[in-house]
Amino acid sequence: MDINCILFDGFETLDAFGPVEILGMVEEYHIRFFSYSGGIVSSRQNVPIVTKPMREADPAGILLIPGGKETRAQIDASEFIKLLGEMAEKSAYCLTVCTGSALLAKTGLLENREATSNKMAFDWVAGIAPDVKWLRRARWAVDGKYYTSSGVSAGMDMALGFLSDRFGRERASTVARIVEYMWNDDKDNDPFAASAT
Amino acid sequence: MDINCILFDGFETLDAFGPVEILGMVEEYHIRFFSYSGGIVSSRQNVPIVTKPMREADPAGILLIPGGKETRAQIDASEFIKLLGEMAEKSAYCLTVCTGSALLAKTGLLENREATSNKMAFDWVAGIAPDVKWLRRARWAVDGKYYTSSGVSAGMDMALGFLSDRFGRERASTVARIVEYMWNDDKDNDPFAASAT
Repeated sequence: MDINCILFDGFETLDAFGPVEILGMVEEYHIRFFSYSGGIVSSRQNVPIVTKPMREADPAGILLIPGGKETRAQIDASEFIKLLGEMAEKSAYCLTVCTGSALLAKTGLLENREATSNKMAFDWVAGIAPDVKWLRRARWAVDGKYYTSSGVSAGMDMALGFLSDRFGRERASTVARIVEYMWNDDKDNDPFAASAT
Repeated sequence: MDINCILFDGFETLDAFGPVEILGMVEEYHIRFFSYSGGIVSSRQNVPIVTKPMREADPAGILLIPGGKETRAQIDASEFIKLLGEMAEKSAYCLTVCTGSALLAKTGLLENREATSNKMAFDWVAGIAPDVKWLRRARWAVDGKYYTSSGVSAGMDMALGFLSDRFGRERASTVARIVEYMWNDDKDNDPFAASAT
């Protein structure tokens, strides 16, 4: 199954590549990178990635949506949001990291669903879509096929949680051990909630 | 100052992009990507990155060397190792993640220095350069300008330790908080040492 990672200029590096590292350890998954028009997209930390146009993605795959400061521009890119919504609706699962949940919320698909986001941009994200049940205290949240994580590094914990839900806890723990990662495995334990703004 | 990240086909995604996320948060640093011949290089998890040839890097920068399974092939690429050694010698600092320390050790520059590496490939790495003081229990190690970390995720802890050494602990802690990362800040606390092979 394809993991379709959706990139845009200024995306936060680890939002994408933390989960990519974790999910890429599973041989059943193939990681692919897309952007609205395709071509080279650079992260906030100047990582230049080769992408294909979003319309070429297998819609039945798993969608991975990073965030970053530039989500504030993407939120108003109506054609991008429309296409993202179409892909998210058809996807088997949809995972967002950090303010990536703002992009997903903007499509309307999180309406009445539980979700979380970056704790340093929380009020901005919540204001985008007040009809979402935003969880101010959550390392990550799960509602049906939608997984949303807190800021940046939380995406790795969510990705391991996602693997645990799909393949069992033992396999997720093995991946964490291989990448020598101290998995914060309790999605409700959020030490950064206190600094939410 | 440039952070010169050296990539090769099959590098481990997070080895590079964990530290890139952390170091890229510091406005004094500019992240750049190089490979031996330049061009597009893909990680083990199929992340395609645009790189420039290593010879175009500013030698006075900070070198960042990821590892991954393909270090086993790179270790025998004598022209690559020779150039890597020249760059490491001139660099202000040299940071390796995971089996990236095997590549650096192969240049001879770690002779009689303390260093560590991935705990699942430890004996292989130590065998490459027996003249290095390999630390089997270390999240990361520092010896002069050489920083070497344990496997994959340990690179993030080392990168924060590096920032702490350069800019003070408060600034490193601030970066960790921004990326909502639970920093394992004790370089001698290595829960994965027990599984060293």
